[in-house]
Amino acid sequence: MGNYVFGVDVGGTSVKMGLFNMEGMAVDKWEIPTRTENGGENILPDIAESIHEKIAEKQYSKEEIAGIGIAVPGPVNGAGVVNKAVNLGWDVTPVKEIMEKLSGLPTEVGNDANVAALGEMWKGGGKGYTSLVMVTLGTGIGGGVIVDGRLVTGVDGAGGEIGHMHIMDGEEEPCNCGCRGCLEQYGSATGIVRLAGKVLAESDEPSILREKEVTAKAVFDAVREGDKAAQETAERFGEILGKGLAMIASVLNPAVFVIGGGVSKAGEILFDYIRPPFEKYVFSGSRDAKFVLATLGNDAGIYGAAKLVLDAVQ
Amino acid sequence: MGNYVFGVDVGGTSVKMGLFNMEGMAVDKWEIPTRTENGGENILPDIAESIHEKIAEKQYSKEEIAGIGIAVPGPVNGAGVVNKAVNLGWDVTPVKEIMEKLSGLPTEVGNDANVAALGEMWKGGGKGYTSLVMVTLGTGIGGGVIVDGRLVTGVDGAGGEIGHMHIMDGEEEPCNCGCRGCLEQYGSATGIVRLAGKVLAESDEPSILREKEVTAKAVFDAVREGDKAAQETAERFGEILGKGLAMIASVLNPAVFVIGGGVSKAGEILFDYIRPPFEKYVFSGSRDAKFVLATLGNDAGIYGAAKLVLDAVQ
Repeated sequence: MGNYVFGVDVGGTSVKMGLFNMEGMAVDKWEIPTRTENGGENILPDIAESIHEKIAEKQYSKEEIAGIGIAVPGPVNGAGVVNKAVNLGWDVTPVKEIMEKLSGLPTEVGNDANVAALGEMWKGGGKGYTSLVMVTLGTGIGGGVIVDGRLVTGVDGAGGEIGHMHIMDGEEEPCNCGCRGCLEQYGSATGIVRLAGKVLAESDEPSILREKEVTAKAVFDAVREGDKAAQETAERFGEILGKGLAMIASVLNPAVFVIGGGVSKAGEILFDYIRPPFEKYVFSGSRDAKFVLATLGNDAGIYGAAKLVLDAVQ
Repeated sequence: MGNYVFGVDVGGTSVKMGLFNMEGMAVDKWEIPTRTENGGENILPDIAESIHEKIAEKQYSKEEIAGIGIAVPGPVNGAGVVNKAVNLGWDVTPVKEIMEKLSGLPTEVGNDANVAALGEMWKGGGKGYTSLVMVTLGTGIGGGVIVDGRLVTGVDGAGGEIGHMHIMDGEEEPCNCGCRGCLEQYGSATGIVRLAGKVLAESDEPSILREKEVTAKAVFDAVREGDKAAQETAERFGEILGKGLAMIASVLNPAVFVIGGGVSKAGEILFDYIRPPFEKYVFSGSRDAKFVLATLGNDAGIYGAAKLVLDAVQ
C-alpha cells in the first residue's frame, strides 16, 4: 500500500507535480519544465528523476510510495498507452510501461481533462458527489465524466470529449477538430470572444467591449456593468452551453456539473446564463442537476492523478 | 448463491417472466396478466405468487434461488424504489422492499429500458462488449447506457433517457414529455410516420406510401423498392438519429450501439441511413463505434433482469 503517492500533470510547457499522503493532503508541490524536443523523449525520464530526487529529499523509503499517477493531454487506453499527444511531441507512447520501468513504482495514466474531473470530485467543487460531469471552459472545452465514482474513459480513451459534441447546424467556420458546429466553438473562452465579435458587428450600439481587448473575462465584467452587447453575448453563450449540458444530462442524469477553466473565473454569474436554457431543454427527470464552480484551479490534475493511484491500489 | 434466478419484466398489459440458470440459460418462460386496477396493488403479489408456484412446480428448494430481478417502466433509484410508473398505476413504490417481503428472496430492480440494455449485453446483440448504448426505437425511444459492464442508472434513475435529448430547434409540435424537438419525435416508429407525412405533403410525386397505411416498416419496405419519398424519409430520420448518437458517442466513446425495438425489424438497412451522418458529426476519437441489431426482442427485459441479480450476488 504505502503512505504517499505522486500526482503528475504533464502540460505542454511545464509538468506540475505533487506529493500527497493517502488522505489526499498535499505534502509538497513543484514544477519542472516540459522538454518537448526530440519527440518529447526526455519528458518521462525527467519526471522519474524528479520523483527520485523528491523521495531522497524527504528521506522516504521506496516501500512508502504507493505509486505514481500521470495526467497527459491525449487519449489514454486501459493499458496506459497514450495514442498521440501533439502538445508533447509524442506519438503512440506506452506511458505506464515506461514510467514503471524508469521509476520502479506502480503507475496509472489518464487523460488530463478526465483526471481533472477526478480531482474535483475528490477534493474540489464536486466533493461529496460520485456522479458528476466536469466541464473545463478554457481555450477549448475539456470534459470528464464520472459515474458511481469511476471515470468514463471510453473504449478508445476518447470519453468526455464534450467540447466536440455537434451543437450547431450551418456553422461556416471549422473547429480545431475539423468539424463545424462543435460546442467548443461557442462555449470556450475563444468561443465567447467569437460570439462577442458577432454581436458587436451586428449593430453600432455603444459598448464597453468596443473600447478594450475582448476576452471572456472582459465580457462578464461588462455584463455586471449592464452592458447590452455583453449581455447578448452571455445569453448566446448560455443558450448553447446550457443546451449541450442538457443533452448530456438527459443521457447520464448526473448529480452535478462542475464548471472549471479560465471562463469559470467569471464566477456564479455564469449559471444565470447557463441554467435557464439547461432547464428548458433537459429531460424532466434530470432537471435537478446542480451547477458548481471548480475550486482546485490548475491543481485539479495533480489531485486527480494521485486519486488514480489510490483507486487502483485500494 | 443458488442455482437459479428469476427475471421479470413488468409491462402495462402483461408481465413477462423467465427462470434462468446461473449461466443465463432459460429454463422456463411464461407470462401473467398485469392487473393495473386499484393503483396496481396486485401486480407485485401476483408476481410473487407465480414465482412460488414455479418453484413448487420445479420442485426446487428456496435455497436454490439466487434472487429475483424486476424491470419496471419508470425511474428506479439505488434503493429499488420506483418513482411513479404511470402505465402500472403506481405512485412511488418501494419495489425491492415489497418483493423481498412477499417472496423471501433477494430482489434487484431496474428501469426496463436500462435492463434491456443489460440483457442485450449479456446474451444479445451486444454480447462480448462491456461499453455499449442500447437504443430502443419503438413507439417512443428508450435507452440504456452501459460503461465497463455496469448500468448508468443516473442519480435520480433517469439515466439513458436518450429519447428526450433535445435535437431540433424550432419544432412546433410537443413531445409526450412536454418539450419540443426531442430525438423521439423523429427517430421512433411514430417519428418516422410523422416524417413520412411531411415528405408526402411537400410534393405531389407518386409514392407507394400514398397507397397504404404508413408505418415504419412500410417506409423501409418502400425504401428497398426504390421509392423516392420513402428514401427522403429515411434520410431525414437517419440525419437526426445519427446526429443524436454522434453526440452521445462524443461524450461516452462506447464500443457499440445496439439498435432494438420495432423499427429495428427493418434490419441493417437502417445503418445505411444512420451511419453516414453519425460519422459526419461524431468526434474523430469515437468514430469507430459499431452498430449492431438487438437480437433478444421482447425477451431482453427478462434476461437483463436476471443479470441484475447475478451482478449483485457475484
